[in-house]
Amino acid sequence: MKPSIKDVAKVAGVSATTVSRVLNNRGYISKETKRKVYAAIEDVEYYPNDIARALLSNKTNLIGLIFPMINNPFHVELISYIETILSEKGFKVLLCNSMNNPKKEQDYLTMLRRNQVDGIIVGTHNDNIPDYNISGLPVVAIDRYLGENVVTVSCDNYAGGRLAVESLLEKGCKNILCIRGNSKLKLPANKRSQAYIDIMNENNLKVNIAEVEFIKSIEEKFELVKEIILANKDIDGVFAGDDLLASMVLNICENQGIDVPNDLKVIGFDGASQTLVYLPKLTTIKQPIKKIAEVSVDKLIRKINGEEVDNEIGLPVVLHKGKTI
Amino acid sequence: MKPSIKDVAKVAGVSATTVSRVLNNRGYISKETKRKVYAAIEDVEYYPNDIARALLSNKTNLIGLIFPMINNPFHVELISYIETILSEKGFKVLLCNSMNNPKKEQDYLTMLRRNQVDGIIVGTHNDNIPDYNISGLPVVAIDRYLGENVVTVSCDNYAGGRLAVESLLEKGCKNILCIRGNSKLKLPANKRSQAYIDIMNENNLKVNIAEVEFIKSIEEKFELVKEIILANKDIDGVFAGDDLLASMVLNICENQGIDVPNDLKVIGFDGASQTLVYLPKLTTIKQPIKKIAEVSVDKLIRKINGEEVDNEIGLPVVLHKGKTI
Repeated sequence: MKPSIKDVAKVAGVSATTVSRVLNNRGYISKETKRKVYAAIEDVEYYPNDIARALLSNKTNLIGLIFPMINNPFHVELISYIETILSEKGFKVLLCNSMNNPKKEQDYLTMLRRNQVDGIIVGTHNDNIPDYNISGLPVVAIDRYLGENVVTVSCDNYAGGRLAVESLLEKGCKNILCIRGNSKLKLPANKRSQAYIDIMNENNLKVNIAEVEFIKSIEEKFELVKEIILANKDIDGVFAGDDLLASMVLNICENQGIDVPNDLKVIGFDGASQTLVYLPKLTTIKQPIKKIAEVSVDKLIRKINGEEVDNEIGLPVVLHKGKTI
Repeated sequence: MKPSIKDVAKVAGVSATTVSRVLNNRGYISKETKRKVYAAIEDVEYYPNDIARALLSNKTNLIGLIFPMINNPFHVELISYIETILSEKGFKVLLCNSMNNPKKEQDYLTMLRRNQVDGIIVGTHNDNIPDYNISGLPVVAIDRYLGENVVTVSCDNYAGGRLAVESLLEKGCKNILCIRGNSKLKLPANKRSQAYIDIMNENNLKVNIAEVEFIKSIEEKFELVKEIILANKDIDGVFAGDDLLASMVLNICENQGIDVPNDLKVIGFDGASQTLVYLPKLTTIKQPIKKIAEVSVDKLIRKINGEEVDNEIGLPVVLHKGKTI
């Protein structure tokens, strides 16, 4: 059992009410009594109860994070940075792993409200998600448009898409395939493939887009990407919508004896540090993950403090020069 | 604004102090007053408040996770499974990213106690960690010995070590280097290199161990591994203590023109799904990550319920056959 206020009272030789009055600094208490209570608190290792304080102050300092977690180093790195920044600012993180499950996502949202979180940062990629437009509940969405009351933060996806496709063109590619996620979702990342379409049109080149749903399992995605690559023997370049898809293309090429970059050039998107440790050779568009985390936290805290906050969807990307283009 | 205790007091027609006393079950309150307060809580959608309930029941259903997070897909996958299992059982997860910072780890422990967590699962790799042997606070440690009152869960590291080194011997290796983390820490994983030492001695082969501290940055680790590989030109096999080290060895070999597996055979340890997506060719010892998560949660809940719980340090591993040995 955790030590309770009663244990403190017993050791101090005072009533529980007196202990509570000392803790809440309420009413007159003699110095001697205070001394005894504080000594007893140390003796029994009673921890001042942040939960009781949260109830009284109507502020929990709890922030809910709803993210798909495994198999995407981009989200993992985001969560890691967000947790670190929030922790430095005195906030605590309730972690919710929404992967592939809209029902679970709704349950998480209910749970977070019952636990009186001060705000939520959401990076979900599910379809049929719950309504995050809740009066009095500040929400920031990373890489997702969730409606009027939710602030969106993302990198400059359009510039990133242009940078990727222009890099392939510079290396001589003419027949570029774009593999992307589900175009039905309202995502800022859709601008990546829009940039691809625009550049291909500007250069009178054939637009060739294949879709692989984000929420599919790794195994399903791998089979789909394999089918796509085998069905597109004439391509000389691939712009993959994220590094997971790019890594699958690389593995399929290795298995099929397709020489990257000589036979096929491949460029990805995200550039999480975990990815670049495992696949330093992957040429990719590097998102400013730490910056996205900082801006998201900043905007959430300003919303919690009642300020008006705008979207920020233009955080700058850079090219990570690997060996795959 | 979330409805506050004042809103409840107004609707109930009592003082905020009275509401607080009802919530804290402090002092004499008439049944009628209690009824009015509870009714008001419902009226103003003082959202069925799990925090208030936690105060009354002395049970928060909060579990603290203290883990190093980024750049180790093994920990990320563990966290993901643990969160999913706890969530199915009605627990909520407070996430603490302890990476490389013992001071932060102590602060997290204090924070978790102030938030009255029901228990903690810890996967820290810091040195000089806080004392987790806290009376009344159930703690489960993954891959770490933390003292009398803390339950340890891990895979069968010794069997894994044997499997790795025997696989290298079977492929003809005679001169095997073992690269491992810091031997000063009390870790079950130390048995991996103990197995290596035993097998090398059994076969009258030279023991050759290099250490790379777990908490060093990726860049520092990479430079150290590079120095180690360049200083050991005569080796024909590497047993890396984890897949991160193994992936670095592979990258260094690629940069140095060392042909894997013809010139050098490399085997890792962990086999997280993220790793095998990015590096399916890596031969490695696959830990039962989901099982470790399940056993850890089971043991923690049994501890919370007051049961006696033993260590479990023999969860079975398997060989993932890649192309690097």
